Amino acid sequence: MKNAQTALTMQDAILTLQKYWSDNGCMITQPLNTEVGAGTANPATALRVLGPEPWSVAYVEPSVRPDDSRYGENPNRLQTHTQFQVILKPDPGNPQELYLGSLRALGVDLNAHDVRFVEDNWASPALGAWGLGWEVWLDGMEITQFTYFQQVGGVALDPVSVEITYGLERILMNLQGVSHFKDILYAPGITYGEVFGQNEYEMSRYYLDDADIDTNHRLFESYAAEARRLLDLELPVPAYTYVLKCSHTFNVLDARGAISTTERAKAFSLMRGLTHESAKLWERRRAALEHPLGVAAAPAPAERAPLPKVPGVETLLFEIGVEELPYADVPATTEAVRESVTAKLAATRLGHGAITVMATPRRIVITVDGVQPRERDTVRTVRGPKVAAAYKDGAPTPALLGFARSQGAEPTDVRVVEVKGVEHVALTRHEPGRPAVEVLSELLAEVVSGLRAGRNMRWSDPGLSFSRPVRWLLALLGRTPLPVVVSSLSAGDTTRVQRQAPYPEVRVTSAEGYPHFLHMHGILLDREARRGAVVRGALEAAAEVGGRIDVEDQAGLIDEITDILEFPYAVRGSFDERYLELPASVLTTVMRKHQRYLPVLDGERLMPHFVTFANALCDDDVVRAGNEAVLRARYEDAAFFWRADLKVAPEEFRRRLDKLTFEDRLGTVADRADRIAALALNLAGRAGLPEEAVEVVRRAGALAKFDLASQMVIEFSGLAGVMAEEYARRAGESAEVARALAEMELPRSAGGALPAGDAGAVLSLADRFDLVTGMFVIGAAPTGSSDPYGVRRAAIGLLNVLRNVPAVAGVRVSDGLRAAAVRYAAQGVEVPFERVAEAAELITRRYEQQLTDAGHEHRLVQAVLVWADRPAQGDHTLAALERHVGSEAFEALTAALQRVVRILPEEEPSVDADPSLLTAPAELRLAESADAVRQALHGREDDLDALVEVSAPLVEAIGAFFDEVLVMDPDPAVRAARLALLAQVAGLAQVAGLARTTLDWGAL
Amino acid sequence: MKNAQTALTMQDAILTLQKYWSDNGCMITQPLNTEVGAGTANPATALRVLGPEPWSVAYVEPSVRPDDSRYGENPNRLQTHTQFQVILKPDPGNPQELYLGSLRALGVDLNAHDVRFVEDNWASPALGAWGLGWEVWLDGMEITQFTYFQQVGGVALDPVSVEITYGLERILMNLQGVSHFKDILYAPGITYGEVFGQNEYEMSRYYLDDADIDTNHRLFESYAAEARRLLDLELPVPAYTYVLKCSHTFNVLDARGAISTTERAKAFSLMRGLTHESAKLWERRRAALEHPLGVAAAPAPAERAPLPKVPGVETLLFEIGVEELPYADVPATTEAVRESVTAKLAATRLGHGAITVMATPRRIVITVDGVQPRERDTVRTVRGPKVAAAYKDGAPTPALLGFARSQGAEPTDVRVVEVKGVEHVALTRHEPGRPAVEVLSELLAEVVSGLRAGRNMRWSDPGLSFSRPVRWLLALLGRTPLPVVVSSLSAGDTTRVQRQAPYPEVRVTSAEGYPHFLHMHGILLDREARRGAVVRGALEAAAEVGGRIDVEDQAGLIDEITDILEFPYAVRGSFDERYLELPASVLTTVMRKHQRYLPVLDGERLMPHFVTFANALCDDDVVRAGNEAVLRARYEDAAFFWRADLKVAPEEFRRRLDKLTFEDRLGTVADRADRIAALALNLAGRAGLPEEAVEVVRRAGALAKFDLASQMVIEFSGLAGVMAEEYARRAGESAEVARALAEMELPRSAGGALPAGDAGAVLSLADRFDLVTGMFVIGAAPTGSSDPYGVRRAAIGLLNVLRNVPAVAGVRVSDGLRAAAVRYAAQGVEVPFERVAEAAELITRRYEQQLTDAGHEHRLVQAVLVWADRPAQGDHTLAALERHVGSEAFEALTAALQRVVRILPEEEPSVDADPSLLTAPAELRLAESADAVRQALHGREDDLDALVEVSAPLVEAIGAFFDEVLVMDPDPAVRAARLALLAQVAGLAQVAGLARTTLDWGAL
Repeated sequence: MKNAQTALTMQDAILTLQKYWSDNGCMITQPLNTEVGAGTANPATALRVLGPEPWSVAYVEPSVRPDDSRYGENPNRLQTHTQFQVILKPDPGNPQELYLGSLRALGVDLNAHDVRFVEDNWASPALGAWGLGWEVWLDGMEITQFTYFQQVGGVALDPVSVEITYGLERILMNLQGVSHFKDILYAPGITYGEVFGQNEYEMSRYYLDDADIDTNHRLFESYAAEARRLLDLELPVPAYTYVLKCSHTFNVLDARGAISTTERAKAFSLMRGLTHESAKLWERRRAALEHPLGVAAAPAPAERAPLPKVPGVETLLFEIGVEELPYADVPATTEAVRESVTAKLAATRLGHGAITVMATPRRIVITVDGVQPRERDTVRTVRGPKVAAAYKDGAPTPALLGFARSQGAEPTDVRVVEVKGVEHVALTRHEPGRPAVEVLSELLAEVVSGLRAGRNMRWSDPGLSFSRPVRWLLALLGRTPLPVVVSSLSAGDTTRVQRQAPYPEVRVTSAEGYPHFLHMHGILLDREARRGAVVRGALEAAAEVGGRIDVEDQAGLIDEITDILEFPYAVRGSFDERYLELPASVLTTVMRKHQRYLPVLDGERLMPHFVTFANALCDDDVVRAGNEAVLRARYEDAAFFWRADLKVAPEEFRRRLDKLTFEDRLGTVADRADRIAALALNLAGRAGLPEEAVEVVRRAGALAKFDLASQMVIEFSGLAGVMAEEYARRAGESAEVARALAEMELPRSAGGALPAGDAGAVLSLADRFDLVTGMFVIGAAPTGSSDPYGVRRAAIGLLNVLRNVPAVAGVRVSDGLRAAAVRYAAQGVEVPFERVAEAAELITRRYEQQLTDAGHEHRLVQAVLVWADRPAQGDHTLAALERHVGSEAFEALTAALQRVVRILPEEEPSVDADPSLLTAPAELRLAESADAVRQALHGREDDLDALVEVSAPLVEAIGAFFDEVLVMDPDPAVRAARLALLAQVAGLAQVAGLARTTLDWGAL
Repeated sequence: MKNAQTALTMQDAILTLQKYWSDNGCMITQPLNTEVGAGTANPATALRVLGPEPWSVAYVEPSVRPDDSRYGENPNRLQTHTQFQVILKPDPGNPQELYLGSLRALGVDLNAHDVRFVEDNWASPALGAWGLGWEVWLDGMEITQFTYFQQVGGVALDPVSVEITYGLERILMNLQGVSHFKDILYAPGITYGEVFGQNEYEMSRYYLDDADIDTNHRLFESYAAEARRLLDLELPVPAYTYVLKCSHTFNVLDARGAISTTERAKAFSLMRGLTHESAKLWERRRAALEHPLGVAAAPAPAERAPLPKVPGVETLLFEIGVEELPYADVPATTEAVRESVTAKLAATRLGHGAITVMATPRRIVITVDGVQPRERDTVRTVRGPKVAAAYKDGAPTPALLGFARSQGAEPTDVRVVEVKGVEHVALTRHEPGRPAVEVLSELLAEVVSGLRAGRNMRWSDPGLSFSRPVRWLLALLGRTPLPVVVSSLSAGDTTRVQRQAPYPEVRVTSAEGYPHFLHMHGILLDREARRGAVVRGALEAAAEVGGRIDVEDQAGLIDEITDILEFPYAVRGSFDERYLELPASVLTTVMRKHQRYLPVLDGERLMPHFVTFANALCDDDVVRAGNEAVLRARYEDAAFFWRADLKVAPEEFRRRLDKLTFEDRLGTVADRADRIAALALNLAGRAGLPEEAVEVVRRAGALAKFDLASQMVIEFSGLAGVMAEEYARRAGESAEVARALAEMELPRSAGGALPAGDAGAVLSLADRFDLVTGMFVIGAAPTGSSDPYGVRRAAIGLLNVLRNVPAVAGVRVSDGLRAAAVRYAAQGVEVPFERVAEAAELITRRYEQQLTDAGHEHRLVQAVLVWADRPAQGDHTLAALERHVGSEAFEALTAALQRVVRILPEEEPSVDADPSLLTAPAELRLAESADAVRQALHGREDDLDALVEVSAPLVEAIGAFFDEVLVMDPDPAVRAARLALLAQVAGLAQVAGLARTTLDWGAL
């Protein structure tokens, strides 16, 4: 940790960055004179990235985030923080290297610190913009956003721009080793707090407490109207300025808590629309001005060098060098490339040995052993016209002559072959194999251009698209460089090692032993080796303080860490024990989700330590100090909230929910909590919960959602429920009530953990029934692209609870929706009931999707969809169906029942049947069998298993009945009695859940 | 002129300035994220200069001036120009030197260029702020505003801050030698126009054409309301931000022409009030925060060194070194210091020879020849108690003992003196003269601390106040340095010569020959020598191109030039001949008023040359090029307007006046022009103008004020009238009509030229009667501090025309006001007639002031004030009074008339008098004399001269009448007849303009 008095001041840092980027070809411009939330919004970015003009620029941008107002008290959070924004258009090809150069200029020793590019995909709904890139971490602290812009204002960018946004306060806090922004030395002898402290306080007051809501609403309207007019006048510059004023005003209202979710969606849509029009207009205007700054040239396609001669059997080494891939893309790409190479090689005649593909975040390496120098030669028969058409009077016809000419052969070269009994003339072509270098250079180019990930982007290269830019190719066949050319890239014989290495680009002389070669340069190519290093490093680091790592529990996180590093280097850090007063869930959430730290345990108890990983050997003390500072800041936040929240009773938080808007037309969050409480009691009744559980539901319902008003949850929204449990328990609520409050929030995701308790399950259902119903009622059903309230996720959660928690399996979807709708109606919301039906339909479709995704057979899925209202029963039936389908008994049963059903008329018989007319033995036996089955199924009428189990005598009796009895007796009374008997039998199928469906599909 | 491709780019300039000021102890901050018109408005200046905290800061400020919008077409004018703002608080004592250092850092060769500090007193009514300082000129181009802030937000500043505001575009245009801002190289390979051209165009469109007026009015109101609320909440930071938003919105409305003069005054008052409250609140808040940045220490008072011994007769040299004085302060201070030194020396007993005081803008130099080494010795008698109280029984009383002790003497030392007949004891004190060094060191300190100018300021020195800062003192008695100490200043033996000299501070070894010493260092101390150098330099420079300078016509300007330079160095420049198409008045107005250039004439014809003066030897080519560029830009503006205006007929301009608001309640400028036209015709009738003149009035009235709609006048408002004449003549109007349009605007100032033509005089009066009446009618009469419409100036102009143009001398003020009021009433304006009386009263008071200022005796002024309604007649009477006062005939006449008036009763006699009852010779003689006078005065009843001339017989007759006749005859009829006769006589006095007034003052 440096001494703040001697380190670079904030103003020096700004001057240094201006100088650095100016020296690297950027214009230096000024912040915008209108409040913006980020440098991105400045037209110097938002508009200038559009169109073909080159534009490299750097500027400081004081970025106003009313939401981040903390009266200057939070060490890391400011209503105005200082961004340093760089735009490189077009992408110069080496933006990461340029960026690292700027850190060096700031005095960051890249060999001591841990600098990492951590996946972060940026999107701004208000701007209609998105891009792929990273957060840059300096010793665990996010200091920069680094993005390849793909779209802005809803307009696709060509060329792509690189955006680099430095968070200056954070960088300076790290460089100066201070733990509060106010302590940053801004200028010699002057701290940030001394200069800006009052501003932070007063503007926080304005944004959080004192901004006049009506006035700001009016300002928003005025700005929007002015933007609209200016667009119609074709003036994108002032129009866009007014969009920015809209945006800031919106943010002020939001910070004041004056924006409902609906208003948010409406405002975003308005601003996105205006931005889009501004962007289109700007493009048009620049074109009309004939692009004063010129047109950026795309890199020229590379030209392939002449192919070398490689006479022997050799190993192929092909490396695709990329900028840091997202962790999930590392294994996925490994797999995809392996498949692609294997398939492509198989389509050639080139002999080769084992194919290996390995990857790190920065490289995909293909090795193919024993590559033959050439493809096998081959002989091919080319068929020509039919013999009958080839010769006339023994002389070659024009058809034959033409065929021969087209093959470069003489008519006399042909021979005769028989195809499907018809004789054709044919030529035998001897085809020599191509040299391996030719085959491979084409094949590998296709592998590169065929790279795809879940989300793909464009960069400077005119012809490629992938998860992140491909920056170099290395291709060696044995010791011979192999010319591979893809778009603007040419393979060479060098690779790039760690960026901070003294020689970051090194020559590779041989395809053999490449993993070892990389290891010598501090890179673990093999994923298993890397994962081993992570686990080993973590365990050793934990053991040093007598702790352990729960490797199994953290397997997912360990995988992530493995896939974001080329050389995992464990660094153990500690935090102040006093933070252990916080719930472990809070501490580990922060560690894992925000920082990818592994928690260190003593038995099951959390220790005040963590393990983080640098990407290379580093100065442990520096990296530790940085990471500890980050965690301290986050824990300081959390502890502040924790202590503040503990002073407030859950009931008081619950009351404060009436200050939070849920949805304009659906009332406050307090209204929603009231509805959930009532609905949960209703559902508890339907589920037949025991009285103790109902009591838990009642109490938890009374406190429902209270933690949404707590500072901790406002800050860490992922802790909703978790904090409810903690706070409720500490406020003296029973463990059951506390737990139920937590479980109300489950499941958090489609595959997330479910409530374990019955009360929790009921509350979880009530929560989701309320949400789904409410949104449908006001016509805010999710559409293909928009589902701001997460209605789909709620529907899925609902199904998961109903399907998996036995206590609530009996709750019907339709009852839940109807009960929720009744609560809305009681609240005065107009409820069009067809909307409730639409909600049910959505749930049915989700259920269908779940079953399909789980791999169930389409016809079975369709068969059990009638059970969508009771999905647990549907599951049960489906399972039974799957168990029995194809079994003799089941097939016999369905066949038998089909016979029964088929003969039954569409309508019920109109006269009463007299059972006493049934006297034949087969008749009597069938009646008895049916009766026996009915009795056997008593109380488990829905149980297909049971039906199948007891069905054998019935099946036999049906068979005998149809063999021996003519149903359609001439005597109508007899006929009626027989049909009535068959109807009873069919009814059994219905009772047992086979219903028409089973029979229907059976009939297909 | 440098090559734009190799010169410093604009962004380099910014980086250079940031580096320079950072190295010199300034914080570097960012522009404000709200539109401001100038860096001054940024709270980093406007609020931070308040209170005792030190604050040195530098920042770029894109400054938005909607009014300056020109669609990017004007080479010098931008709606957003880039300021670089520096605040030094407290004044570091050498801010000019620091500033010049920054120019050097930018690569300005101070020995080649002409850099000058040209008086400019800054005030911002909206900010409630003012300061004294300069524009800095670089080769004639204003590149920087340099101000010592004295007050901001209506709050006096302590300590004073130095504000330095660079106009970056202008500096860069000079340094890069380009003539249009668009050609400035902003960054390598990128011009300003390429980057900002579209912005300029679009924002100009917004500000000039397309901003929605209603919306902006609403925004203004919302912002003001929010500021008000935030002040009440004691949050100065957001409050002030909203004041700035008000201000920008106001500027937008103003640029759209949507602000009337009344609205302007109202808005300014509102914004000034809000700013003032913000400022006070900020001060309070900073104090409550205990001044986080500390408290700036004032320089300590200097301590005086021990006095040296100077045994012989020597010359005294005392130099007061100042920063550049305003030109008018140079002669005024010379005179004041001469008086002060002379008087102060006279109050000592120090013998000395001639006192010389000379000054340049940077120094006031006092030389006193033959200063004796000591004062004369003297003897003084100190009076003690009365003898009666001094001794009791012959022994000294305590009174005597006390007296003796207080004088350090023995009781026996006393002697007896007689004072007004009473005997006192007394002591004779022998008082030796003090050494000259002692006398002078005190006396000179008083001279310095007593310096005052018309407007004074404070700076870093805690105890001084003057027109500009006093920065050094030089004091030598012969060759001996004389310790003079004033506040924080100590005299030394060095002076400061030209700032760009290699050694700008030089030692002075002797008081002798100082002017010569300075001359050797490139400074002409003697004003006459400097003036001679100016005239000679100008004539020589003009002669080189075969031209001349009208030295007499330009005497005032030559004086100014003399007083702004220490070493006038003539540089002749030229401009493109094509500008000669412009009226000479336009060209010379620009040259003289804006640039202090002397026009070069060929005979009477303007040549395309001018002479400017640098302050030292310089690189003529560089200075010429810079000045030519400035003039070219100004002429380019003018030519653009000229050509555009010529395309529009005067009638069309006249119609467009209905787009210009004159005053909300008084209508448009077109309404005003209509009223003036009608009123002028009315006045022409009252003045009895001949028909030809009335025709001129009619036609000129129809076009009245048309040029206010021309672009030239909108730009150069001082050319109103001048352009009317030019444009009218070119549009084919007669010379008389054109001239009358010009003369309507005369006089332009209290002492300005008056209309020479009768039609012009009538129009001038109509203009001013309309203005004065209108403002009184709506209650906008001038107050002590506020007279936004210049009503006082109009009243003075009115009087000057009435008093000096014979053709309109017969127009009565009351008639003019009444006729104007009638026009307003006709227009539907409610006219409270007492307001018109108030207007008349204002004019009377102005007339009184004029007469008093002209040195007329108070009683005479009071005597003729009855003529305020016809001031020419008042002047005539006053002149007559002054001629006759003290003459025998006049005194006799007034004495006689007084006798008559005194005996007359207050009321008219109630019965008819019968003249036939007057039979006594004295009675008859008096009646005859009175009759004779009446006949003699016929047709010139107002002529005091005539009355005096013919009054001798009347005076005699009055004397005889009172001697021989008893007025109060017992017979009422006789008495009535006699009183009637006397009333006739008194009436003569009234007719002759003596009236009661003359008699009244005679009676005093």
